[in-house]
Amino acid sequence: MKREVSPFVVSPVYAEFVEASNHETATQSESKYMRETVDFLLRDWLKIESLTSRPRFADHSHETFSAVLDTAETIANEKYAPFNRTVDVDEPHTETNADGTLRVILPRATHEAWRAYAESGMLAAAQDYELGGMQLPYVVEAAANMFFSRASISISWALLTTGNANAIMAHGTRAQKDVFAKNEFAGRWAGTMCLSEPQAGSSLSDVATRAVLDDESDPLGPRYRLFGNKMWISGGEHDVTENIVHLVLAKIPDTDGKLVPGTRGISLVIVPKVLVDERGALVERNDVVLAGLNHKLGWRGTPNTLLNFGEGKFKPLGKAGAVGYLVGKPGDGLRCMFHMMNEARIGIGLAAAMLGMAGYEASLQYAKDRKQGRPITGAGKDASKPPVALIEHADIKRMLLAQKSYCEGATALLLYCAKLVDETHTGEAATAADAKLLLEVLTPIAKSWPSENCLEANSLAIQIHGGYGYTRDFPVEQYWRDNRLNMIHEGTHGIQAMDLLGRKVVMEGGKGLTLLATTINETIQRAFHVPELATHAQSLARALQHVGAATKSAWSTGNPNEALANAVPYMQAFGHMVMAWVWLDVALCFARDPHRHPSPRLEGEGAFREGKRAACNYFFAYEVPKIEAWLAVVRSRDMTCANVSADAL
Amino acid sequence: MKREVSPFVVSPVYAEFVEASNHETATQSESKYMRETVDFLLRDWLKIESLTSRPRFADHSHETFSAVLDTAETIANEKYAPFNRTVDVDEPHTETNADGTLRVILPRATHEAWRAYAESGMLAAAQDYELGGMQLPYVVEAAANMFFSRASISISWALLTTGNANAIMAHGTRAQKDVFAKNEFAGRWAGTMCLSEPQAGSSLSDVATRAVLDDESDPLGPRYRLFGNKMWISGGEHDVTENIVHLVLAKIPDTDGKLVPGTRGISLVIVPKVLVDERGALVERNDVVLAGLNHKLGWRGTPNTLLNFGEGKFKPLGKAGAVGYLVGKPGDGLRCMFHMMNEARIGIGLAAAMLGMAGYEASLQYAKDRKQGRPITGAGKDASKPPVALIEHADIKRMLLAQKSYCEGATALLLYCAKLVDETHTGEAATAADAKLLLEVLTPIAKSWPSENCLEANSLAIQIHGGYGYTRDFPVEQYWRDNRLNMIHEGTHGIQAMDLLGRKVVMEGGKGLTLLATTINETIQRAFHVPELATHAQSLARALQHVGAATKSAWSTGNPNEALANAVPYMQAFGHMVMAWVWLDVALCFARDPHRHPSPRLEGEGAFREGKRAACNYFFAYEVPKIEAWLAVVRSRDMTCANVSADAL
Repeated sequence: MKREVSPFVVSPVYAEFVEASNHETATQSESKYMRETVDFLLRDWLKIESLTSRPRFADHSHETFSAVLDTAETIANEKYAPFNRTVDVDEPHTETNADGTLRVILPRATHEAWRAYAESGMLAAAQDYELGGMQLPYVVEAAANMFFSRASISISWALLTTGNANAIMAHGTRAQKDVFAKNEFAGRWAGTMCLSEPQAGSSLSDVATRAVLDDESDPLGPRYRLFGNKMWISGGEHDVTENIVHLVLAKIPDTDGKLVPGTRGISLVIVPKVLVDERGALVERNDVVLAGLNHKLGWRGTPNTLLNFGEGKFKPLGKAGAVGYLVGKPGDGLRCMFHMMNEARIGIGLAAAMLGMAGYEASLQYAKDRKQGRPITGAGKDASKPPVALIEHADIKRMLLAQKSYCEGATALLLYCAKLVDETHTGEAATAADAKLLLEVLTPIAKSWPSENCLEANSLAIQIHGGYGYTRDFPVEQYWRDNRLNMIHEGTHGIQAMDLLGRKVVMEGGKGLTLLATTINETIQRAFHVPELATHAQSLARALQHVGAATKSAWSTGNPNEALANAVPYMQAFGHMVMAWVWLDVALCFARDPHRHPSPRLEGEGAFREGKRAACNYFFAYEVPKIEAWLAVVRSRDMTCANVSADAL
Repeated sequence: MKREVSPFVVSPVYAEFVEASNHETATQSESKYMRETVDFLLRDWLKIESLTSRPRFADHSHETFSAVLDTAETIANEKYAPFNRTVDVDEPHTETNADGTLRVILPRATHEAWRAYAESGMLAAAQDYELGGMQLPYVVEAAANMFFSRASISISWALLTTGNANAIMAHGTRAQKDVFAKNEFAGRWAGTMCLSEPQAGSSLSDVATRAVLDDESDPLGPRYRLFGNKMWISGGEHDVTENIVHLVLAKIPDTDGKLVPGTRGISLVIVPKVLVDERGALVERNDVVLAGLNHKLGWRGTPNTLLNFGEGKFKPLGKAGAVGYLVGKPGDGLRCMFHMMNEARIGIGLAAAMLGMAGYEASLQYAKDRKQGRPITGAGKDASKPPVALIEHADIKRMLLAQKSYCEGATALLLYCAKLVDETHTGEAATAADAKLLLEVLTPIAKSWPSENCLEANSLAIQIHGGYGYTRDFPVEQYWRDNRLNMIHEGTHGIQAMDLLGRKVVMEGGKGLTLLATTINETIQRAFHVPELATHAQSLARALQHVGAATKSAWSTGNPNEALANAVPYMQAFGHMVMAWVWLDVALCFARDPHRHPSPRLEGEGAFREGKRAACNYFFAYEVPKIEAWLAVVRSRDMTCANVSADAL
């Protein structure tokens, strides 16, 4: 594998230094650490082999799961990791076509990565065999996708196509599945999700794109004409594939030609970039036109677009308006789109966790390689001794252990949630219902917690590198920039918090929260019996009790203004409690439980075991105390922020 | 003033939106908010007019101080703010000279900003009248510089020249002052500080640049020949001025030709880019050559260089080695350089605070302009109503109030420290000694606290902008990138923490900490008498007591390994305690104290007063509880991090 040469270095002295220093980080994707961690979590913690006893996964085994991860790792190492800086520097740009429209130019690496990913079958990994799929559990698909995200988050945009095709599979007609979803699973076409508009970011109520009925009897579904603008559309224009399938949220006007206010009036429409016939053959250009590219802080390899629908550049089928085909029923658009939301949000959490992981591995390697400073001793520092590796300093270890606890913890939580997705699809009725409920409660955490904390991990990775971390000759600054998006897209931090405290913990009379508490309590009970974990079990029990009490206090007046004024601090506290539970549960894998035989695989792995235990101890000593600090304002329904007048700010 | 047009916008629809949205943020530097805040802090809180009773400042008055701030504000608005994005995009780059050396190309705006700054007299603001200075108090100089930092941190590198010249004024010979410092104060030449080397970032013990005696009797000081490389040198090469005065840390070899290990052997040497005669006329090129530019994450407008000294490109005065003139005594280099360290570190804190302030103002304006979503009511959201401004949402207000409390609080602390600098220079003996001690204890906080918390403020400013904040069409992403440097340069976060817990709070038997505690207690006592502040006074008293106890616990075994293992969490807790004190003291300006007449100027300013009180309340409700969370590991001397083995990570 050829190492990418930094496009920035100009000095021979500096170049030599950089070459010597980041040799390992440049090839970090070949490190064993990430794979070992994923293997451990899937096998020893989540015990996913048990899924193979279910009919859908009957052909699978530990070996087939491993083979999928092997393939993902190989492609990620060869086609993604070496080009992560390339796609950041050689940002998507536009050129003008002969017809006056703009086309998006992407680096060759992006095309090749798409091809390799599609050829691996990953686009259809979870689909039925007859659709060309592998019938993989979602948890294995998610684990495999981790390797791509970690290697290059912004080359990893194929996930959007899978999500798009999954939505069509769930709600589309037979013809829509055959024509659109199948071609997406095959990698022939790509897909997008078109929700936001320039004037209405998070507020879908205010969607203004109109879908006017054109022909009810089109074989591809009721045909509409769309007019409007869509903003923040990832992969909205490119020539990586011959066609792009846009899934668009639009409103169908009522008989007076007016749009229904709110989200009830929203419908879901398939709008292909190029119109196709019933066999999927390309026919003519649709009126979906690139209006501009967003120039982002990070995540630059993924083209992010503003699209105009039906502005008049083309007259598809001889008439004005972009041609689209309704999916599901009119007005049912949000439900159809949100069907995929849990998985989409787990995907964001995964992206955040993997950016964190990439930064952790890079800074770990740097800390081992770079010699600087001397340890403190009672007698002061002895400057005549040679400098030691950075990793010998306590504060560097603190920053490494913090990253490890955030990123491995997040990875564990996300794989746990991914397994819950499998339970909802293939578990027995009662298990499936519980899994669905638990997933509802955990999804805002799975999305928000890694977005916030693995971003902080990336900042620590920069800090460990010192000044070098602040340069573009080392990979960590890019991870930090890339990761900043995750608190924004797929529902901002604030929206996740409202979802958690305003909906998820109170729905069905608090049934979801109760189920989570029961699940956490099971872990606490087991840990109470393990001498070295009993104190942590106590801390977690206290945290659980305090989060429960704060939930009650928040809602005690029944006034949503008061309850939700501090939804974000609530979510931060809740997230840390969940992560403490995850770490305690993971640590139990290594516990010397007199009532339980530890897995033979986990015996004797000294450093591996020490690392997990240290990360768990770190989380309880350094992080769990923050829960109380966040809950203070929730408990007291503090209205300092909610009540301050705009003029006073 | 012409508004800078974004170089990124390509779509007319988008361009219109951006134009409409960031009109105000683009001209944010003209907002009154920052000036009002600085005026209030200087006049009503710090009461700096009292300084005019001192002989050195006898010519000054409220009016002359205001005139300086007016000038700074005007130049910053006209010559800095409009080009902050320009210097980020049009990054410094190199071209090759006829003689094979590299020159650095900077945008025209950088040249013009330098000229305007120099012509305003700011470079010599605090100097004696006879040196062409204004004999301004340092606190006024610092306040004036805030406007430049806020307008464009990376155009604001003239501060380095002032710092350099100040060091020469403090330790140089008459000739060195006349030739080098004077030309720097006049803006004819620029200055740098050359400490770090590629192999030894923070570890000055390992400086390897050699200074070999050449001629003891040079009129510009003992002449040495320098050989070595210096890394991270801001302003190390450019043609903004006709010459550059490098202040270089180097080691003079002993009689065996060996360098003394440790920092004791370090000397301070003036190395001009172009050699000059005793009248300051340029003579010939010195052997200081640009080896390369660092390509940074942010702060891109300031060229940051790797310099080679004496590598043989030139033979100044006919011999090998860069020519330099010793400042002070051999081996006294660190002391001479660190003489300026408190002010340099206050400068970093100011940079961080002003980047925070710029982001706060931009996001405040955006939150007022941007309509999105609807408020929560008991009856749910009414989608038929028009969307409200973002600032109507509680969580947006929370993010604004957090920024306000961080950035105004940091500004207040830094001005407080700047006034301490004046006390050390012009106060009566006892006051000066106390001020010096207090400044020693507060400096690590003044540097680290804004670096960490105003960076977080910038992240919140992005969050308020949503997706737009993640694009380069809005200013906030740049502030965040720029601000990330401040935890790294002038002593990393970890180094500040070791300085605080390892040196400052224990020096002279804890005298500095005792003095700080006494100072904080005075505020607590006053606040106890003010009904609306009594609870905060209690919280602060508790925090002070806990920080004191944690300091004792940390050192209770006398083992520095144990004491310092958690120096960073200690510094975080300590910093929050200091900031709580600052806010309580600021709030006292507005207090309805039955024993005290509030300033008439503070009467009736409803919104201004409400804002300060809300920020203070925010800090006590949301931030102060974190102190306990950080102290937990300090108190218990937790060794989880210090003891983990490198293999386990």
